[in-house]
Amino acid sequence: MQLLVSFSLLSVFSVTVSALWPLPQNLTEGTTALRLSPSFEISISSGIADAPQDLYDAISRTITHLFTDKLGRLVVGRGASDVSAFETAAYLPSLTLSLESGSEVLSITAEAQKPLEERDEVYTLTVPSNGTAASIIATSTLGLLRGLTTFEQLWYEYEGTIYAVNTPVEIGDAPAYPYRGLMLDTARNYFPVSDILRTLDTMSLVKINEFNWHISDSQSFPLQIPGYMELSEYGAYSSQMVYTPSDVEYIISYAGERGIDVMVEIDTPGHTSIIGESHPDFVACYLARPWASYAGEPPAGQLRFANATVANWSAGLFTEVSKMFPSSMISTGGDEIQTYCYDMDGETQYDLNSTGRTFEEALTDYVHGTHGALAAAGKTPAVWEEMVLDYNLSLSTDTLVLVWISSDDVKAVADQGFRVIHAASNYFYLDCGAGEWIGDDPTGNSWCDPFKTWQYAYTFDPLANLTSDQYSLIMGGQQLLWTEQSGPDNLDPIIWPRAAASAEVFWSGAGGNGTAALPRLHDVSFRMQQRGVRTIPLQPLWCALRPYECDSYW
Amino acid sequence: MQLLVSFSLLSVFSVTVSALWPLPQNLTEGTTALRLSPSFEISISSGIADAPQDLYDAISRTITHLFTDKLGRLVVGRGASDVSAFETAAYLPSLTLSLESGSEVLSITAEAQKPLEERDEVYTLTVPSNGTAASIIATSTLGLLRGLTTFEQLWYEYEGTIYAVNTPVEIGDAPAYPYRGLMLDTARNYFPVSDILRTLDTMSLVKINEFNWHISDSQSFPLQIPGYMELSEYGAYSSQMVYTPSDVEYIISYAGERGIDVMVEIDTPGHTSIIGESHPDFVACYLARPWASYAGEPPAGQLRFANATVANWSAGLFTEVSKMFPSSMISTGGDEIQTYCYDMDGETQYDLNSTGRTFEEALTDYVHGTHGALAAAGKTPAVWEEMVLDYNLSLSTDTLVLVWISSDDVKAVADQGFRVIHAASNYFYLDCGAGEWIGDDPTGNSWCDPFKTWQYAYTFDPLANLTSDQYSLIMGGQQLLWTEQSGPDNLDPIIWPRAAASAEVFWSGAGGNGTAALPRLHDVSFRMQQRGVRTIPLQPLWCALRPYECDSYW
Repeated sequence: MQLLVSFSLLSVFSVTVSALWPLPQNLTEGTTALRLSPSFEISISSGIADAPQDLYDAISRTITHLFTDKLGRLVVGRGASDVSAFETAAYLPSLTLSLESGSEVLSITAEAQKPLEERDEVYTLTVPSNGTAASIIATSTLGLLRGLTTFEQLWYEYEGTIYAVNTPVEIGDAPAYPYRGLMLDTARNYFPVSDILRTLDTMSLVKINEFNWHISDSQSFPLQIPGYMELSEYGAYSSQMVYTPSDVEYIISYAGERGIDVMVEIDTPGHTSIIGESHPDFVACYLARPWASYAGEPPAGQLRFANATVANWSAGLFTEVSKMFPSSMISTGGDEIQTYCYDMDGETQYDLNSTGRTFEEALTDYVHGTHGALAAAGKTPAVWEEMVLDYNLSLSTDTLVLVWISSDDVKAVADQGFRVIHAASNYFYLDCGAGEWIGDDPTGNSWCDPFKTWQYAYTFDPLANLTSDQYSLIMGGQQLLWTEQSGPDNLDPIIWPRAAASAEVFWSGAGGNGTAALPRLHDVSFRMQQRGVRTIPLQPLWCALRPYECDSYW
Repeated sequence: MQLLVSFSLLSVFSVTVSALWPLPQNLTEGTTALRLSPSFEISISSGIADAPQDLYDAISRTITHLFTDKLGRLVVGRGASDVSAFETAAYLPSLTLSLESGSEVLSITAEAQKPLEERDEVYTLTVPSNGTAASIIATSTLGLLRGLTTFEQLWYEYEGTIYAVNTPVEIGDAPAYPYRGLMLDTARNYFPVSDILRTLDTMSLVKINEFNWHISDSQSFPLQIPGYMELSEYGAYSSQMVYTPSDVEYIISYAGERGIDVMVEIDTPGHTSIIGESHPDFVACYLARPWASYAGEPPAGQLRFANATVANWSAGLFTEVSKMFPSSMISTGGDEIQTYCYDMDGETQYDLNSTGRTFEEALTDYVHGTHGALAAAGKTPAVWEEMVLDYNLSLSTDTLVLVWISSDDVKAVADQGFRVIHAASNYFYLDCGAGEWIGDDPTGNSWCDPFKTWQYAYTFDPLANLTSDQYSLIMGGQQLLWTEQSGPDNLDPIIWPRAAASAEVFWSGAGGNGTAALPRLHDVSFRMQQRGVRTIPLQPLWCALRPYECDSYW
């Protein structure tokens, strides 16, 4: 009378034993257990003359992670069933880092801050199962860092033993795209430096290599810029809610040591209402009402770009910002310019009429001014898509274009020959789906509903709709957090582990199967938790411990 | 040439100076500042003989909150503009708590655990502006606690001075509904006791008085029940992820002292797969596949309610649970019974056929058994709506019915004469809108999309569609967190401050204007943050500091 059901845990996938995220390009692994020696050491090959301090620091962090992650395997029993395998396993005594002969030896930081095309993150990792030394070989210190990050993810802990289950391991790895970013808006709400540092650590764990720092917006201007201190003095939320030059230097240094470049954005000429606190004469439709006629969100106000004083001031601002940020890239923004604001602004109309320029001609002059300042500082400009799709500004073709409105717009940007950074709201906006935040809209949903799941981001194809000769224009992409409804207290759960989805798409390449990936994503999410990151659970723990059993067809 | 815009902060609302949440029934306030004396004291009137310890403890907590909240006022400058008003203000020396003569003196805990109809939370609060003592008068210690909670919300801090801005204050207050709850699912994912305690503290801050503890489900059974220890021994996620009898006792005590009753739910006969870990013969379609044919979510498995042994065992379980939970109410669940599971279960079909009962007759016997056990223990049963809308089980009319599928179902439940607890997914489910969590559905959204905003919950009308003679059936309601995608690390931001919306609806009554309420909700959310609760920002700080300026028509 008993209903016939199957109790066995069948799997329709060939289960990857290891749980690396992002998945390496080439991975061969065994099924032999290996223990980490309590005296485990990492050494730098004598062939690396004058190894940089940040490589030594990276090694120290890896040693710490190996012994403090204490991640129990995500199986029922959390590793109890591994004991019989590991209790007779060999001990791994050491790991050696080497550079291919002839490789230039630079700091990780210097490698991470190179222009996109020059970045080298290639590495090979070998972990024998017989107790002989493991090795990472690369052609840059940055590659060695990536190998260390991968190595850390091989290890689990059960009752004091640190062990791997999948040796021997042979990995040959390199990223599919040179730009794998995360954007954080620190203007709608402010984030203390400590939150940014923790976020950088987590980014590095999944090999995200670009921190796109949307540092100012209409609501606040927290960045202290020498020579432009009035912006933060009047525009920061408080005198404590600022990023001082030394904060910025520390964040950049902390990022660099972790293989992350910092591309800052000072969004202009839109998204600048707060500049009116210190320069009311620079801002059109400053606090104009109803704001909805003049701005995408409150408060209204945009720089009077047609004014020569404002344009010169803006160019000078980017000159100063260029001194603060060593990255080869700086974003000048350029999204959501509200033309009605300028149409209604007497000063702007006067400036246009008196110089005989059209709106677009004046905007061209303005952007050429800011981009010229960047060029003089040796920087490549990045802009939001409207700067090339809505206006004919004759921008330099080396300009990087972030496509945010829709992934459908990528083709048009590529058709103009610009390099693309994917930032599509329809896949990658981490803030979508949290409801409306405008104060008098009780039935409203977020403008970009629904919530962008990790699964959906994971289906993203960076090369969709492009011709093969356009593929080289795709630099990579990122997930993004706009912070109208986020602050320090929900930063971790709204980002992690979701932002790992794009990290894998742009490292490992598109086409991964999300269903097969989920156990690995659980694993890296739990590892983040072990490191103090407040990740959101993707499923009930029952599911996390039983790969594939919470797929719908089971 | 200048565009004419208005810079003044006009308000279309009569701005409530105070920021109390939930809003008292009757509130008269002035515009005079008042300072809290550094030697401020709270005393219990000599008319209260043998004041209970938990009232003394509540006073201690209030004193602590007054001096440690240190909440800056949510205006530009965070209180700097209040200095001129408060620097000449009187000092409030003390607050006196009194009970109306003839009031019975019970502990706050005992008052909180009374049956719904007997709860007394009435209080009056008077705070003069001239430096004479403030007073709270009530007819129960629970009312005094509510008054203390309100009193705490009057105070702000600026550079060491603790002050109010709206004295004299006269408040007469009482809840619109006796049940104002929060439901937490501790089975899909486990929450340490400390998370529950922090949640109880936050509930108390907004006068939520019922913790509806969905303690077990198909994924895990963390509750240790004397005589039924095998359930948690085999069904908890780990030996650490349990609630011991002493944990439960502590949680109930902690809740009670804060004016909160704990209504536990052991959901049966559905949502019980995990019982199969210890009693495989008790569970139909245990781990059957594909689970989607047998269950609403993985894993499949439901108690064989038609089996006499299972029915008796279940009744005994509720007898034991009744001993652990002093509340007058215990929920036996009863949602989402999957009939196909039973149709396919040979044991169940045998049990039905051999006793000559229909499915519904056997279910009636089962529920009468569990409810009989509760009745024998002096408890009132609560059930999910299907128990009265989908089945004709002849339940006692004192049964409380939680309406979750849709608020549209409330009328049908009331038409049957049952008392209602609002728990509608279309208004109150805190987990909606976070995407699909089933492992192989890359384009799926949450089943109850979109995200349920605080604004929308705030529009809820508890009496909608009812006739006036049915109003007395409405006991109140609650927001609910199902935890497929929640854990300790996102507990606070997914609940708070959203769950304050229903707290006000069911305390102050329906019909509040959300736009007018937002500044108060910001205030209580920031106060929660000052107490270590990780609340989500509702808006950019720019908006939080400028009431109504982020409404759409500005």
